[in-house]
Amino acid sequence: MFLTVLTVAEALTALAPARRAAIGMTPPGLGVVPARDVTAGEALPAWARATVDGYAVRAADTYAAAETLPAFLELTGAVAMGRPPEGEVGPGAAMAIPTGGLLPPGADAVVMVEHTTEPMPGHVELLRGVAPGEGVLQPGEEVGPGDLLAPAGRALRSADLGLLAAAGVTELAAYARPRVGIVSTGDEVVPPGTAALSPGQVRDACAPALAGLVREAGGEPVQRGIVPDDDAELERVLAGAVEEDDVVVISAGSSVGARDLTAAVVARLGEVVCHGLAVKPGKPTLLADCGGVPLIGLPGNPRSALVVFRLVGIPLVRTVAGVTAMPPVATVRAELSRDVPSAAGRLDVVQVTVRDGLATPRFGSSALLGPMVGADGWLRVPEPANGLAAGTAVDVELYG
Amino acid sequence: MFLTVLTVAEALTALAPARRAAIGMTPPGLGVVPARDVTAGEALPAWARATVDGYAVRAADTYAAAETLPAFLELTGAVAMGRPPEGEVGPGAAMAIPTGGLLPPGADAVVMVEHTTEPMPGHVELLRGVAPGEGVLQPGEEVGPGDLLAPAGRALRSADLGLLAAAGVTELAAYARPRVGIVSTGDEVVPPGTAALSPGQVRDACAPALAGLVREAGGEPVQRGIVPDDDAELERVLAGAVEEDDVVVISAGSSVGARDLTAAVVARLGEVVCHGLAVKPGKPTLLADCGGVPLIGLPGNPRSALVVFRLVGIPLVRTVAGVTAMPPVATVRAELSRDVPSAAGRLDVVQVTVRDGLATPRFGSSALLGPMVGADGWLRVPEPANGLAAGTAVDVELYG
Repeated sequence: MFLTVLTVAEALTALAPARRAAIGMTPPGLGVVPARDVTAGEALPAWARATVDGYAVRAADTYAAAETLPAFLELTGAVAMGRPPEGEVGPGAAMAIPTGGLLPPGADAVVMVEHTTEPMPGHVELLRGVAPGEGVLQPGEEVGPGDLLAPAGRALRSADLGLLAAAGVTELAAYARPRVGIVSTGDEVVPPGTAALSPGQVRDACAPALAGLVREAGGEPVQRGIVPDDDAELERVLAGAVEEDDVVVISAGSSVGARDLTAAVVARLGEVVCHGLAVKPGKPTLLADCGGVPLIGLPGNPRSALVVFRLVGIPLVRTVAGVTAMPPVATVRAELSRDVPSAAGRLDVVQVTVRDGLATPRFGSSALLGPMVGADGWLRVPEPANGLAAGTAVDVELYG
Repeated sequence: MFLTVLTVAEALTALAPARRAAIGMTPPGLGVVPARDVTAGEALPAWARATVDGYAVRAADTYAAAETLPAFLELTGAVAMGRPPEGEVGPGAAMAIPTGGLLPPGADAVVMVEHTTEPMPGHVELLRGVAPGEGVLQPGEEVGPGDLLAPAGRALRSADLGLLAAAGVTELAAYARPRVGIVSTGDEVVPPGTAALSPGQVRDACAPALAGLVREAGGEPVQRGIVPDDDAELERVLAGAVEEDDVVVISAGSSVGARDLTAAVVARLGEVVCHGLAVKPGKPTLLADCGGVPLIGLPGNPRSALVVFRLVGIPLVRTVAGVTAMPPVATVRAELSRDVPSAAGRLDVVQVTVRDGLATPRFGSSALLGPMVGADGWLRVPEPANGLAAGTAVDVELYG
């Protein structure tokens, strides 16, 4: 069999899924991905409001005001919060106004209370002048009708929720969280709840960890259980997942026999894009397009599987989720504590701890999760590099 | 009234909450914070396993093997996945074994299939020798009994979920997500679902945005509604929140009158720690300790409120959630596009966009959410600095 090995970038290009998760109306929420730009229906604020505590005035009445020569205005009322002002501000007059109060008719500025005195009841002295618009938030200064509130393709953040609420947007067209079917395979794999293992058995470490990564990516994990190394049974479960889910992930077994079985079944369900990735750990990765549903056959070693899912699965899930503006990765700059070997042409992913600016690699068999669990993050030795020398400045991608 | 103004660091020290969220048994999950170290009850793996596809052998039988002089062994069986090996490996013998298969008795190494041939049925030729332990994952190599699986105080990550599942940990002692009561105040504030505003009204932007930030911090938002500027009603609602929640947040109104009202009520419920923060925007922040429950009175301007909650509220919620290892922040190094003014003695938080390594400030009234919504992140002008000059290298803290 001809084996296609791709780099991560090539694989993501080759597998680029055309299908997106379903679009529906949903309330704004953290991580919700708008399917279309959300725009304002009205101006915000709708009316001019005070941005300071003080007095609403006509700016023209205040031009000459100074500490040495205060302007003397008649106090004709007070604006209450949340209600239209009672009365208006005529020439030579002022109304008391709290921050956020609606600017009364006639007024065009607000003098801060700190720059005033009330020398006698019913009057106010201004110790400095204001320009028109000073101390005032103008109508539409936040957004005008039709202005963008939240762009399509960027997951909503907390501040977006505030602006959407201010604009009265209580639902929007958004992508559903993609359903990501997770299939574990292997005669040796038993559920994590298995109290006592029989000789040769291992508990399913991959499925729960993948569910976590799927959630990190904004997807909804769908646990499709543990399938024995049986051709017909695997085909039945995978066909169901391809039918119902938006992305399908298989922890495919680490033996050649298990991988061959998976590859044979997958080849019947879709088009195999590659049989391997130029990544260490993670080479034995199968990628396929099953009628528009991306399918990822992960390596059998749990750590390799998690590395590959971070590299390939998370971007795929986000793409299917409609995300076009990928969120930033937390990285820290550090100095490599020792040489890291690597082969050119292959991406090496190295687990590291970071202390006092020094990145220390954690090696160990890719069958072990420990090097990843105890790491602060990973660094990439890119495809062209022939290893990295101690002392090299590296960007460590940090785990949440 | 004597007004105490603290820096963010001083405020976090002064308010350091002693109480933690309730501890209970819960299944492992993303973001769950273990209350105690989780340790392994048994060795992982429990039995020696093959890490490669090949042949289980006695290493001593293979020492002299080479391409030019292969070792010739009798093939006495095959190990099946998930089952104890049938038979053992005697001197001069070998058993076929898949990756992950249980090492049969007598064998101490596995020769990769790539280094072998099967010249005739029932026999295998080894083209190179192996040392004892080669191709084998030893019992306890992942963890031994009593070894740490997940430390107390660090929120569980996806890889942790894998290791815990492998070890059969289906529940653990963990902190509950802290309940964070969110109280909106102001006669002018109406629910986001209000279709048409009356003059002077504004929709509640803070509560939904704060709920998002609370979730980002690992807390559970408890919406306690919009309270008018009424002393007795505010006290009733706040007292209920302090009674039932782990942290209480008030968006306190931006007028002096509203802030004074909040301060008076809070002073009756607990000990006021400070009346202001040396932060711009965000100075009018009230912090109090209400019998062990931290209470945050946020500034009335939504953007100031979100800045302060990120600076003070998120660390407080995480502390109450039992987190002792704070997660990393995504930052990017950029060059400032223009001068940023600031006053020494005050932390300035500046919203910025980042393009091609250039950080461009987004200014605007702190009454506007827009500068934050459209930003990629923020930069801090620290307390001692008297502004930053164009061209300065800055670390931008990125929004998710």
